[in-house]
Amino acid sequence: MPLHFSEAELAARRAATCRALTEAGLDGLLMFRQESMFYLTGYDTFGYVFFQCLYLSADGELVLLTRAPDLRQAEQTSVVEDIRIWVDAPDARPALELKAILEEKGCKGGRLGVEYEAYGLTGRNCKRLEAALEGFCTLEDASLLVSRQRVVKSPAEIDYARTAGRLADAAWDAALGLAGPGADEGAILAAMQGAIFAGGGDYPGNEFIIGSGPQALLCRYYTGRRALDPKDQLTLEWAGAYRHYHAAMMRTLTVGGTPPRQREMHQVARDALLAVEERLRPGGTVGAAFDAHAEVLDRAGYRAHRMNACGYSLGTTFSPNWMDWPMLYRGNPVVLEPGMVFFVHIIIFDSEQGLAMSLGRTSLVTEGAAEPLSAAPLDLVER
Amino acid sequence: MPLHFSEAELAARRAATCRALTEAGLDGLLMFRQESMFYLTGYDTFGYVFFQCLYLSADGELVLLTRAPDLRQAEQTSVVEDIRIWVDAPDARPALELKAILEEKGCKGGRLGVEYEAYGLTGRNCKRLEAALEGFCTLEDASLLVSRQRVVKSPAEIDYARTAGRLADAAWDAALGLAGPGADEGAILAAMQGAIFAGGGDYPGNEFIIGSGPQALLCRYYTGRRALDPKDQLTLEWAGAYRHYHAAMMRTLTVGGTPPRQREMHQVARDALLAVEERLRPGGTVGAAFDAHAEVLDRAGYRAHRMNACGYSLGTTFSPNWMDWPMLYRGNPVVLEPGMVFFVHIIIFDSEQGLAMSLGRTSLVTEGAAEPLSAAPLDLVER
Repeated sequence: MPLHFSEAELAARRAATCRALTEAGLDGLLMFRQESMFYLTGYDTFGYVFFQCLYLSADGELVLLTRAPDLRQAEQTSVVEDIRIWVDAPDARPALELKAILEEKGCKGGRLGVEYEAYGLTGRNCKRLEAALEGFCTLEDASLLVSRQRVVKSPAEIDYARTAGRLADAAWDAALGLAGPGADEGAILAAMQGAIFAGGGDYPGNEFIIGSGPQALLCRYYTGRRALDPKDQLTLEWAGAYRHYHAAMMRTLTVGGTPPRQREMHQVARDALLAVEERLRPGGTVGAAFDAHAEVLDRAGYRAHRMNACGYSLGTTFSPNWMDWPMLYRGNPVVLEPGMVFFVHIIIFDSEQGLAMSLGRTSLVTEGAAEPLSAAPLDLVER
Repeated sequence: MPLHFSEAELAARRAATCRALTEAGLDGLLMFRQESMFYLTGYDTFGYVFFQCLYLSADGELVLLTRAPDLRQAEQTSVVEDIRIWVDAPDARPALELKAILEEKGCKGGRLGVEYEAYGLTGRNCKRLEAALEGFCTLEDASLLVSRQRVVKSPAEIDYARTAGRLADAAWDAALGLAGPGADEGAILAAMQGAIFAGGGDYPGNEFIIGSGPQALLCRYYTGRRALDPKDQLTLEWAGAYRHYHAAMMRTLTVGGTPPRQREMHQVARDALLAVEERLRPGGTVGAAFDAHAEVLDRAGYRAHRMNACGYSLGTTFSPNWMDWPMLYRGNPVVLEPGMVFFVHIIIFDSEQGLAMSLGRTSLVTEGAAEPLSAAPLDLVER
């Protein structure tokens, strides 16, 4: 199986990480975020659901500690050569096996960065890790060290993000082919996810969101599908995913007529989306982009209905979450650079009237204006 | 939106949890496992990707702390009434907001159980939780308290598991309709997942596994699809999921002829699967069921090719993992009871010859012999 990036690009990424480690005074990094492992070595798995750690020393040495089912996975998908295996047993202590590896690598008395903010490092495993390494070396939170590097995409990554954008549009087309009175949400979901798989795409980092009727005001996945009523509304949030790079989109479409209030909500959402995208330019901050959303909604009298965040960075992320660092919320000081990718979603839910409206797409930050990765129009869709 | 279990059943589950808390000398439980929240209250979300905690006091009081996007989600999907919201900001400190809630609920100086083994409680959030509650109350690992309760399913849960089994069979039928020389893995994946969504089912807790050629020897998802060769092998591991209850299956099928060695591997896998299932009877242990797998493989001369685990419990689990507690490995002392559900998978990978064979299905433990939730035959499938 080929790597999805050249060995040279992977090596350059690791070299940049090693420089960042050295600048931070760290002797190495204990990675628990699968996206970091994929980004630096190609290693592609969901084996992080169990204790799994990739060690990178500041001078570039790599050791992976994982379970047996991931030995071949690492061999076939990554450039990692030193792979150690721990075995399930009532007395298994993988954190101690990690300590033995670090001892072998001369980390005693050193300072190591740890990706503490990782679904792959549960609270329990975190406590075992800290207990195992207590008095052996100093640990420091370095959760964002690789994420800060990942946020600006290379040309090869941007190609994958563009493909993800095309897959997201294909999923939307598949939904439009079915949505209407009597349509079954399950069939719509099958068609959307199917368009992405059939196009060579991947599972999304989190489930697509699909809800109609009163549930069009929800913005998380939940179990239980329904059929659309003759008069209805359908909220969809989905992402094309390719090589694990995401391009998300969001829409609420109406069925059997659009109340004037909901039509107005769409206008406001569109104005807000375009206002945020206008601020996705080099030198601006993520917090200022959020402010544009707040200003449009507040001016239109929608302050009570606006969310505390209106989007986030997208990249190669793994389940259970496609939301990458950083998020678009008030005061976030992260400065925008070309090569960043942001999903902006405007969500307006009016609980009193039971009306939903959402509009969102993913854009690439360039030297000039942000470039949407979706070609779909932003017009209100009525069925 | 209706609850998927009666309020009486949910209340009885919570009462059982409260008894377990009292027996363990705990004043309450801080839940971070989404499966626990779904099981006890119906609450259905992927909002656990951010700091989120459901507090249950030993006398049955519930408080949920989550972000704004999950307020309506909790209102619509669960019986939780007391929902508190924390807001994203550079200075957000949700663990301190949790402390304030616990203070209000009289937990100062008390003993609380914590679900430390939770993807929803990352290492970083765990450290923040412990820092916030240091000196305020005593924390104790109670990761399995609800899982031990969940492992034995109620009649209503068994109904959902049976539906999941039918959806798994439907996905297999969809794969069989496409698999053959030249078939595209992406199209097969689209058809399998599509059959489940169209049947009202859910996203699986982890990605389906699909691999052919040399990648038929992998047992994790990875990005990058290929088309089947005229002579090939295809390994699939998938699950029907309904109301988040899983019924998993696994198969390796051959394309354009089956080498004698691979045919023998299938015989051994089948013998081992049936031997393990024969031990899935009340009073036996999970470790003894694993031993049956080891005995068959070792006797057939496959010791070098056998895995360290041959299955696990299935139930309502959330992304990124459908593998539930407990796992079938050597020495695991958990005792079997009617109402438990186990996925048994026999995986034989011969790296030297590049041959894969896998066979797996999900069964319900009854008073007598285990009852497979799949109706599909175990014969070798050749295309």
